[in-house]
Amino acid sequence: MDRIDSVLNALPQDLVTRDPDITARYLTDFRKYLTGATRAVLRPRTREDVALIVRLCAEHGVPLVPQAGNTSYCAAATPSAAGDELVVSLERLNAIRELDAANLSLTAEAGCVLSVLQEAADAAGLLLPLDLGSRQSCQIGGNLSTNAGGVSVLKYGMARDLVLGLEAVLPDGTLLEVLQPLRKNNTGYDVKQLLLGAEGTLGIITAVSLKLVRKPVQTVTAFLAISQIAALTTILGEAQAYTGENITSFEYVSDHSLKLLLAAKPEARHPLSEASAHYVLLEAQTASPVFPLEDAVSALLERLMEAGLVTDGTLAAGGAQRDALWELREHIPEAEVAFGGSIKHDVSVRTSRLPAFIEAASALVETHSQGGRLSIYGHVGDGNVHFNVLAPEGAVASDYKAWFEREVAARIYDLAVEMGGSYSAEYGIGLVKKGLMARYGSPEKTALMRAVKAAVDPQGIMNPGKVV
Amino acid sequence: MDRIDSVLNALPQDLVTRDPDITARYLTDFRKYLTGATRAVLRPRTREDVALIVRLCAEHGVPLVPQAGNTSYCAAATPSAAGDELVVSLERLNAIRELDAANLSLTAEAGCVLSVLQEAADAAGLLLPLDLGSRQSCQIGGNLSTNAGGVSVLKYGMARDLVLGLEAVLPDGTLLEVLQPLRKNNTGYDVKQLLLGAEGTLGIITAVSLKLVRKPVQTVTAFLAISQIAALTTILGEAQAYTGENITSFEYVSDHSLKLLLAAKPEARHPLSEASAHYVLLEAQTASPVFPLEDAVSALLERLMEAGLVTDGTLAAGGAQRDALWELREHIPEAEVAFGGSIKHDVSVRTSRLPAFIEAASALVETHSQGGRLSIYGHVGDGNVHFNVLAPEGAVASDYKAWFEREVAARIYDLAVEMGGSYSAEYGIGLVKKGLMARYGSPEKTALMRAVKAAVDPQGIMNPGKVV
Repeated sequence: MDRIDSVLNALPQDLVTRDPDITARYLTDFRKYLTGATRAVLRPRTREDVALIVRLCAEHGVPLVPQAGNTSYCAAATPSAAGDELVVSLERLNAIRELDAANLSLTAEAGCVLSVLQEAADAAGLLLPLDLGSRQSCQIGGNLSTNAGGVSVLKYGMARDLVLGLEAVLPDGTLLEVLQPLRKNNTGYDVKQLLLGAEGTLGIITAVSLKLVRKPVQTVTAFLAISQIAALTTILGEAQAYTGENITSFEYVSDHSLKLLLAAKPEARHPLSEASAHYVLLEAQTASPVFPLEDAVSALLERLMEAGLVTDGTLAAGGAQRDALWELREHIPEAEVAFGGSIKHDVSVRTSRLPAFIEAASALVETHSQGGRLSIYGHVGDGNVHFNVLAPEGAVASDYKAWFEREVAARIYDLAVEMGGSYSAEYGIGLVKKGLMARYGSPEKTALMRAVKAAVDPQGIMNPGKVV
Repeated sequence: MDRIDSVLNALPQDLVTRDPDITARYLTDFRKYLTGATRAVLRPRTREDVALIVRLCAEHGVPLVPQAGNTSYCAAATPSAAGDELVVSLERLNAIRELDAANLSLTAEAGCVLSVLQEAADAAGLLLPLDLGSRQSCQIGGNLSTNAGGVSVLKYGMARDLVLGLEAVLPDGTLLEVLQPLRKNNTGYDVKQLLLGAEGTLGIITAVSLKLVRKPVQTVTAFLAISQIAALTTILGEAQAYTGENITSFEYVSDHSLKLLLAAKPEARHPLSEASAHYVLLEAQTASPVFPLEDAVSALLERLMEAGLVTDGTLAAGGAQRDALWELREHIPEAEVAFGGSIKHDVSVRTSRLPAFIEAASALVETHSQGGRLSIYGHVGDGNVHFNVLAPEGAVASDYKAWFEREVAARIYDLAVEMGGSYSAEYGIGLVKKGLMARYGSPEKTALMRAVKAAVDPQGIMNPGKVV
């Protein structure tokens, strides 16, 4: 009997799934970069189950790979192909433990699907201000383990910023409970920060207490045409000033991306009468019933048009129009897939440098990509742009992507880093970006990460090979 | 030549202050709990100076105590009485390196006084939304090392939440640079979180990049009388709803505290015509020029008075009136000192449980304190209350305090912890609260803290004896 059998035999068998037809769906990452192997997927129902699993794995030196919604863009939750790791799926650990409306907090288990938590908050007249495209399938444990970003970061921050408390199982099977939903709690090191963004390499998050906010009672959504990308920073500043920093989303869409989308989705319509090189999808929200939000955004648009910063714009007149505008932004990734998929560069720079980055990076692609097609969009209010490139028409997409990754991609990352930016704004590291971390990561930071990893997980059994 | 001499002799002598007349002011903590000793205070001018100091101390195994503004309430920056530790004052590392207005960021060195940074932001038409009573003397490195709270946490979060980037010297003298002012940067563990709130036990923060926000152009300040403390939570909720979560401060003042203040400061005036058991100082701010903030707060007051939740209230009609209202809140600690000083309990619970905590804790004092006088105030919008007790009139304050700390204080902390709260909301641990951490801290958390400390500072030279 080998070490893995020792673990599997010691577990209650209803937690163990060995059927390869079932385990298959846990083995390929969302972007289909790679497919791993495993002897079993473990599906705990309680935090005690998780602690038992980890304790047994620690005892027998068996590595494990925590997995939530399996929507990582960096294969952070995919086991190795060697089949020597067990997958721990948190999907059955999915109870909402408590919603304390007066405390504006929600305590839920790691396997809760994000949209389920959003709905629970909504039903209580509140808002969980974490939102991203994969909301229907991603799970909160994964959102926190990767410090997810998304479309509301501008106003509400990253996933990390929404965490009041955390419960996790450490690599030796210890249950760590710092779950109280407190806004102030300076009692020693804030150890929950270790688990947030660690992509499962320092333990398994089992539950979390999240900040809620009051539900917006007014939403104004606008789609603006911009002639000069240099104006983006000014427009953002003016929008924040006019609305009292109530801009929740400030999303850039390049004309390239909009054209792709309109080609891929014939039912979608261009929201403006004329094409422009650049667009912004802007959303403002407030929980106040008395602030004239729509007037403020209208006045803003007028001012921006008078100043020549915006050439055209439309305000959504209701929920259906709002949804249509958001589809233009959120379905771009699907449109890219319809045209063979894209090479993604999830980079960030200061918001003050973003227009210059987009221009310079576009010029690099123009010069070096042998006809690659740009698709640029993203959360530019946070300095985060998804700078993507599609194969030229007629090229074999997979061949082109491999060539581009080898010959061109480094130029784009080099540029972002030279401009003081990041080579991974919100996707994280996982397996896929480890090469980038080796190239751009500060050696001092990496050494500190390794020291922490060795201290917390001395056997190296938690999600081995990822991040560190 | 002993180890300390080896360090001191190897340093440029202009960094070394040995004159006891000068070093004396670094040796007593702000609350005057204790006075330490040192052979020298080191005062680096650059981050390279800091790295050199730490490298030499690491080489010779000499412990050191980082000190910024020396305003800790827990003696977190006071050396031991044995004189075997060197004090490193960051006060000369006080350059503002950069203010990037379009990126809403400010990069400054650890020794900058908070108010200086606030003024720099203000001069750029922006706001640094970290604010606390000691703003004129505390330094930003200390604010971050203790994860300071203060009077703007409700809207803007704790000091930790305002940090975009950090530069620090690790316990082996390594300079760690993760200083880029980026809002999104998921590139491995967020190592800056380790230093934030670690009270100097894991390294010395040398510089920080902070988030700024747009400067409010409207401020409305109100002072409300509340008959039932149970109404606090409802009033906070209504205020947030009406103003679209633009309440920046929601400070509780008990009638006990207001009476103390009025007795200690004859020039201060009661802002309302009749006394009440409880008051709230509420401030709303917005950067929007078009939102009718004062109308919203007036409508809120009307509604709260109609509902009987608020019995009386006044709105500040200008800067001078606003300042007068704030003095009623901010000078309470001084008033306590004028009456012999207070035993402070800096506790937090969920905002939903705060009224119940205040009632139950007050009853405990009533029953057990042999006539102690209550002074309760604080940042109740964040669930944080300063639950303070003064000696009975006529008692010898120091004797009473010692008796109270021994016989009664634990009852109050017990209650806070039993209610799911914290025994140190914003003051931290330092030396003074280590006993509380031993009593209430989770053993699993403490073990994890120790593992991290041992990994990052294996020699234990950074601020020994504090926190862990």
